[in-house]
Amino acid sequence: MKKIGFIGLGHMGLPMAKNLVKNQYQLNVFDLNPEPLQELKALGAHVAISATDAIQNVDVIISMLPSSPHVESLYSGPDGLLASITGKPLIIDCSTIAPDCARRVSKAAADKGLHMLDAPVSGGVAGAEAGTLTFIVGGNSDEFNSAKPILEAMGSKIFHAGDHGAGQVAKICNNMLLAVHMIGTAEALNLGVENGLDPKVLSDIMVSSSGRNWSLEVYNPYPGVMENVPASKSYDGGFLVDLMHKDLGLAMEAAQSVKASTPMGTLARSLYAMHSQHGHGQLDFSSIQKLFSGE
Amino acid sequence: MKKIGFIGLGHMGLPMAKNLVKNQYQLNVFDLNPEPLQELKALGAHVAISATDAIQNVDVIISMLPSSPHVESLYSGPDGLLASITGKPLIIDCSTIAPDCARRVSKAAADKGLHMLDAPVSGGVAGAEAGTLTFIVGGNSDEFNSAKPILEAMGSKIFHAGDHGAGQVAKICNNMLLAVHMIGTAEALNLGVENGLDPKVLSDIMVSSSGRNWSLEVYNPYPGVMENVPASKSYDGGFLVDLMHKDLGLAMEAAQSVKASTPMGTLARSLYAMHSQHGHGQLDFSSIQKLFSGE
Amino acid sequence: MKKIGFIGLGHMGLPMAKNLVKNQYQLNVFDLNPEPLQELKALGAHVAISATDAIQNVDVIISMLPSSPHVESLYSGPDGLLASITGKPLIIDCSTIAPDCARRVSKAAADKGLHMLDAPVSGGVAGAEAGTLTFIVGGNSDEFNSAKPILEAMGSKIFHAGDHGAGQVAKICNNMLLAVHMIGTAEALNLGVENGLDPKVLSDIMVSSSGRNWSLEVYNPYPGVMENVPASKSYDGGFLVDLMHKDLGLAMEAAQSVKASTPMGTLARSLYAMHSQHGHGQLDFSSIQKLFSGE
Amino acid sequence: MKKIGFIGLGHMGLPMAKNLVKNQYQLNVFDLNPEPLQELKALGAHVAISATDAIQNVDVIISMLPSSPHVESLYSGPDGLLASITGKPLIIDCSTIAPDCARRVSKAAADKGLHMLDAPVSGGVAGAEAGTLTFIVGGNSDEFNSAKPILEAMGSKIFHAGDHGAGQVAKICNNMLLAVHMIGTAEALNLGVENGLDPKVLSDIMVSSSGRNWSLEVYNPYPGVMENVPASKSYDGGFLVDLMHKDLGLAMEAAQSVKASTPMGTLARSLYAMHSQHGHGQLDFSSIQKLFSGE
Repeated sequence: MKKIGFIGLGHMGLPMAKNLVKNQYQLNVFDLNPEPLQELKALGAHVAISATDAIQNVDVIISMLPSSPHVESLYSGPDGLLASITGKPLIIDCSTIAPDCARRVSKAAADKGLHMLDAPVSGGVAGAEAGTLTFIVGGNSDEFNSAKPILEAMGSKIFHAGDHGAGQVAKICNNMLLAVHMIGTAEALNLGVENGLDPKVLSDIMVSSSGRNWSLEVYNPYPGVMENVPASKSYDGGFLVDLMHKDLGLAMEAAQSVKASTPMGTLARSLYAMHSQHGHGQLDFSSIQKLFSGE
Repeated sequence: MKKIGFIGLGHMGLPMAKNLVKNQYQLNVFDLNPEPLQELKALGAHVAISATDAIQNVDVIISMLPSSPHVESLYSGPDGLLASITGKPLIIDCSTIAPDCARRVSKAAADKGLHMLDAPVSGGVAGAEAGTLTFIVGGNSDEFNSAKPILEAMGSKIFHAGDHGAGQVAKICNNMLLAVHMIGTAEALNLGVENGLDPKVLSDIMVSSSGRNWSLEVYNPYPGVMENVPASKSYDGGFLVDLMHKDLGLAMEAAQSVKASTPMGTLARSLYAMHSQHGHGQLDFSSIQKLFSGE
Repeated sequence: MKKIGFIGLGHMGLPMAKNLVKNQYQLNVFDLNPEPLQELKALGAHVAISATDAIQNVDVIISMLPSSPHVESLYSGPDGLLASITGKPLIIDCSTIAPDCARRVSKAAADKGLHMLDAPVSGGVAGAEAGTLTFIVGGNSDEFNSAKPILEAMGSKIFHAGDHGAGQVAKICNNMLLAVHMIGTAEALNLGVENGLDPKVLSDIMVSSSGRNWSLEVYNPYPGVMENVPASKSYDGGFLVDLMHKDLGLAMEAAQSVKASTPMGTLARSLYAMHSQHGHGQLDFSSIQKLFSGE
Repeated sequence: MKKIGFIGLGHMGLPMAKNLVKNQYQLNVFDLNPEPLQELKALGAHVAISATDAIQNVDVIISMLPSSPHVESLYSGPDGLLASITGKPLIIDCSTIAPDCARRVSKAAADKGLHMLDAPVSGGVAGAEAGTLTFIVGGNSDEFNSAKPILEAMGSKIFHAGDHGAGQVAKICNNMLLAVHMIGTAEALNLGVENGLDPKVLSDIMVSSSGRNWSLEVYNPYPGVMENVPASKSYDGGFLVDLMHKDLGLAMEAAQSVKASTPMGTLARSLYAMHSQHGHGQLDFSSIQKLFSGE
């Protein structure tokens, strides 16, 4: 069975690594935080003493880091992994980062004769734990086909978005659209309620009509309309406002570089920033409903 | 079989009236334009010489007019129908108008002992012709139940949104949300394409992910992605930009009166107004894609 | 000296009427609230028992009412003044209302052979008390010249904007632009402060540069930067958030009727609505700064 | 007299360098484009063969480059100037770049014992030629005082915004506010004109009222209202749409990093991007008026 070096074991990385272990992969794991390392050791993973140590003699390297500078520094920095990799492991970066950064790093990898894909995920912590993540992958077809079986150990939908960086672009476009229809749904529900409608009745009408969208279908932001969604649990958990804000920042960066107009997407960024400034950065992103209800 | 006075035989009203005739209702029809009257006469309807004439001795009155002032003037003006109605016909106004106007007119009807519902539709000309419209109805439960069988002769989904005016509110909320996710979809697709993605691949990814919405599912705005949608027919037909602009104006009016914040919805209005100013008012509303591609 | 019938003695109307009295005009005054009537009686005005009573045998009628329906009902309703006016008094409506409404009422006046101008004001309660209001007048040149001396008793700047309704249009355009640069100023100051700048230093730089605008010059929204402005008095008094929201609603109405795109103006409306929903409707409109600082 | 190494002689840099020569400074100049070098040589400047050559034995280094990566690479790259500077010249970077980049580079300079200020300008090519630029400077007071006399040879207003990076922040805030009131002015003028007003009359009213701003005062965007502005010369010259778009991108970056909400500023970015997509990137930024008039 293939040997994988896994770097970055946060809220997402840890359950992803666990699923690889469950699927019989041999893991070399590393994170600056010792806690997840202990957890994985108990499951049979080998705990490395550094990122460089984690990638010795592996077939695949997977990284799951918070942002572009982390990825750039891990791979391309003066002490970056690209300088010390031995063999020809396939590199899969699952971080959500700027497409330009993904392209730069995969180019640097290619310059060393290495194959590197961008494979950001959606589905959140719950999806990571259940092994039902969606992976949106950028790289050539051969690279995609090599990575697919490994990604299937952690997710249920594996999309090939296009060449290097395309995984990041598609993820960013999707999340920008998600933010737009979530806010649009919240303001439509608020407009209806302020005009005397029942939020559940209005939701039922819109989800059966042309207003239909994912937020209405599975993640209704109005408290009490749907069970088992963050809106009915004080907006606890889920996909945090501050993480949505980060993704919208990546969308703006991608828009700026090609002079694309994104009026709805950038308004969404400002509304999430405002919501965070009002103290709600650690709530689920459907809590944007509060911005309209004035709570 | 019930006798219906039908007033307003435009692009929507005419096919609606035809479906009632097909369903064996006796129709008294009136419009200022003689053409649709001749068409309905050939099908067996009685052609009235005035709106007042059309509603004599009927069980049901149906009106389908362009805007609030038309409805107010038809029913409540100095020569309004409410002053001359005989008997107790059920009144169903299918126009899309301001909720306040709908409430005022139904109140004036109630003052005369008459029952009046607001029942705006969605589904467009195609839905009107096929008899598959969606009706979103405001009025009390008894009124709704009386109207339902008649509406079912013209539509396939009949929603009860709440009390008088609620049909208009729900329609407006739905269409505002539709405008928001249509524009959001257009700008996400444009952002992806400008960053090198294939619009079809990106659409496939987003419709299977959290970006999913009605625009992506059945009405993709990017030319060539989907067959048989306006985007693949030069944005011909469908739901016109100027009509979407009108509905967004009603949403703003409804928002203003209750001081509801609708940042996405009002931005959508301004973008549709801009698109219309650039000469595209008579294209399908998915043509907003052109605003982003700069054609 | 001319005799004036003055109807509507609220926060603005009362001090305006007082200035007319001070300038030796004979006043017939009316309001539904008895308090301002007593105040004006003590200054020598004649207190009428109804609006109709207030306009008997006067040379000029001035009205100062809260909104379009009030003005329409005062003049054109079934018991409206236009039906009972004797003589040929010049009518000056100083209310801020929809241009369409102003045009309708002045047209109805003209149909009776009467001259009516729209003359909305800016300058707030302080300007009304000091007699330094700005009047923005719509009507023909003769009408404007007749009204000018009277308006000069209450204001220091009297503009002729154009024909009937043009006073309202110009007032609305000005206030929309005011809202836009006030919010723009607030967000620029917040952006600077969050990036480590001193708000006073940044204000000094921008007011001397191309960012200069009235908000920076005389009404800085950041607490502590300028003395004697609402921002340095807990946003007390001044021009209330809810009144700005009302004016932005009129701007939207004027935009909708001509399909004008107003992305900044309608975003401003939504942000003021949001601010009001968060409980700040009765603060000065420069308090929009709080929306950005997250207080 | 002080010896200055000047790097970057584009549309702005060239006239700035000429003004230094006129003020008796000895210049070592460098640019990749030979044309401006010849022009400066004719005026008595020494033409260097590389950036490194240009800064040998100078008292002051001035750079004027297009964007953050250019500045970072000039100073901090592997062959960056910071590695080869001899002596202790004062470094003044006049480029408009990201504050974070300015801070990083000035920190790198400080690590070598060098003083470096950020001193972005406003006033455009005309201001650069006339020697009337505005400099907005970030650095400590001693550094500011050292730089001031040199900047006064090129500009008429020299502001001290705060510590390193603060010059960039203030410039960005100012330009964001400029974009907002320019667009606000354009949409207010369009709204007035569409409602029957004369753009000159409306401009006169607003510039004398609370709508007043720099765009109305000196740069009216409506064709024909003001002489000798870009709007009356087919929007030729001035401050280009694409440059405003670049500055708004820097504002977004600065907003993103501190989670500041900038709804007006980011909407401005999207509208300028849209305007550029429609083929107007090389027009003056007041041409945004065309977006509203639909030309």
